Amino acid sequence: MSFDLAAWSRSALDSVETALSAWVAPEPAASAGAPGHEAPAALREAMRYAVLDGGKRLRPLLVLAARRAVAAGEAPEVAQALDDGAMRAACAVELIHAYSLVHDDMPCMDDDVLRRGKPTVHVRFGEAQALLAGDALQALAFELLTAEQAAMPAVVQARLCRLLARAAGYEGMAGGQAIDLASIGQALTEDQLRDMHRLKTGALLQGSVMMGAACCDPARPCGPAMLEGLAGYGAALGLAFQVVDDILDVTADSATLGKTAGKDAAQDKPTYVSVLGLARSQAYAQELLAQALAALDGAGLPDARALRALADMVVNRSR
Amino acid sequence: MSFDLAAWSRSALDSVETALSAWVAPEPAASAGAPGHEAPAALREAMRYAVLDGGKRLRPLLVLAARRAVAAGEAPEVAQALDDGAMRAACAVELIHAYSLVHDDMPCMDDDVLRRGKPTVHVRFGEAQALLAGDALQALAFELLTAEQAAMPAVVQARLCRLLARAAGYEGMAGGQAIDLASIGQALTEDQLRDMHRLKTGALLQGSVMMGAACCDPARPCGPAMLEGLAGYGAALGLAFQVVDDILDVTADSATLGKTAGKDAAQDKPTYVSVLGLARSQAYAQELLAQALAALDGAGLPDARALRALADMVVNRSR
Repeated sequence: MSFDLAAWSRSALDSVETALSAWVAPEPAASAGAPGHEAPAALREAMRYAVLDGGKRLRPLLVLAARRAVAAGEAPEVAQALDDGAMRAACAVELIHAYSLVHDDMPCMDDDVLRRGKPTVHVRFGEAQALLAGDALQALAFELLTAEQAAMPAVVQARLCRLLARAAGYEGMAGGQAIDLASIGQALTEDQLRDMHRLKTGALLQGSVMMGAACCDPARPCGPAMLEGLAGYGAALGLAFQVVDDILDVTADSATLGKTAGKDAAQDKPTYVSVLGLARSQAYAQELLAQALAALDGAGLPDARALRALADMVVNRSR
Repeated sequence: MSFDLAAWSRSALDSVETALSAWVAPEPAASAGAPGHEAPAALREAMRYAVLDGGKRLRPLLVLAARRAVAAGEAPEVAQALDDGAMRAACAVELIHAYSLVHDDMPCMDDDVLRRGKPTVHVRFGEAQALLAGDALQALAFELLTAEQAAMPAVVQARLCRLLARAAGYEGMAGGQAIDLASIGQALTEDQLRDMHRLKTGALLQGSVMMGAACCDPARPCGPAMLEGLAGYGAALGLAFQVVDDILDVTADSATLGKTAGKDAAQDKPTYVSVLGLARSQAYAQELLAQALAALDGAGLPDARALRALADMVVNRSR
């Protein structure tokens, strides 16, 4: 039962990049004279700049790994429609992530100038265009999930929209960012820090897992044990990701990270390292990895190998 | 076949306000200890401030009027589910409109301090919170359309998401705003002005009409003549709305409008009045009203009276 994560993720990421490039505000075809194709070039360029050629694509990988984990015994045409759905979900969740970075980097938020090794969107295109590009990327995420060309059943489309909207909204990512805003310069307890991150980054990471799992045959939906296992995995992994992020913010340099290192401390933001110290943070990350893997054990998933390998990669990454 | 618009819209708006108040980031129930209910009070407050107690609610009225126009001969439980869907669509489209105003008023965009007679969201809550509130309102729009409690069929949920995402995104409202950005200080032709407004305000107004029409029995979908008539109505109405907006910007005062009057001219933005002059703009608005009504004539709609009355109200309003 060995699993080659590198080969699987290389192939998965190739497909994700191809799909993103085709779906994110492409140049209109020369023949397209139909209304609705006049989106200005600058906006399309800013949207593509924000999304393409960058990022670890962890969320798309989680979607595709979770889809892989639940797929079994589907008729070929059903499997194909659900695979298409998972690719749409993978891209949609990355668009939400990308828009959140664009807005988060703006002067009124984190005011950052470097992202994925490049100038941030507002530095490159101006603040107004960055604001609009982020807004348009969020809308596009839901458009991808429900496009006329989408092959998955409508009930899967609606479920994906529901999961993504909840993970992105005020009870998810946006809510976590608001807590983050309010916490600058505050001394948080470990519990408060966990609550913040469970929303800010955890909700979308866990949402990615649940969206992948939602790409299953509506006639044979995932059972409660499966869903509970995947939710537990997603929650532990989401928190582990943030703990490791906080560790790397103090142990890695900007060139390796592709973003400004040490900025949490510079902005006086509470982090796991500031609350627990470096050594206990590292131990905690390993503990969360073990929790994530344990959650999968009793879930009865057809093939959880990609999910397991991704959890290991998240915790033991160097950037 | 007389129709009392005032009575119908009073009742419709009562229902919309009640639904918005229940659905937009309400206080968590005292007993709710479940994860995901920790959204910070400041964010919820900013979201509610942006949406509740204000606005003409034209988009929700268009959704509900279009639903009314296509409803006929449905079984009672089907009609009830579709009415619930139309109310969700009405609120969702208003959330998109509200978020666009929050972002549009920010300093990096129009930098406006007054909206619906109140300080704008960023003046009241700060720029960062305004940015997040807008983002969270957009996500909430899609959550409303696909909530577990939503009674309409999944195929209607997915169609509503598709229509809303397209109307809001880079080929719709956000694209129009980007054209608007690029047009400040430019001399636009009438064609360019129309293209900009067809996206900036027209897409969401037309989208409202099409979303209301999408709330029909999937077993008996609207025919092409109906859809074409509604699309023509929505396009003409959307443009008429903007022409009248431009007229009121020069003929009404801030107190009547509830927003800063004369700001287009102050910002050197091209408007119908600046391109056509006041008298020709007024004639054009009446011509568009006639077009909107004519589009409904051959559509074979069961009851288009509310749509007709709304078009008349849009063109002959004083604020």
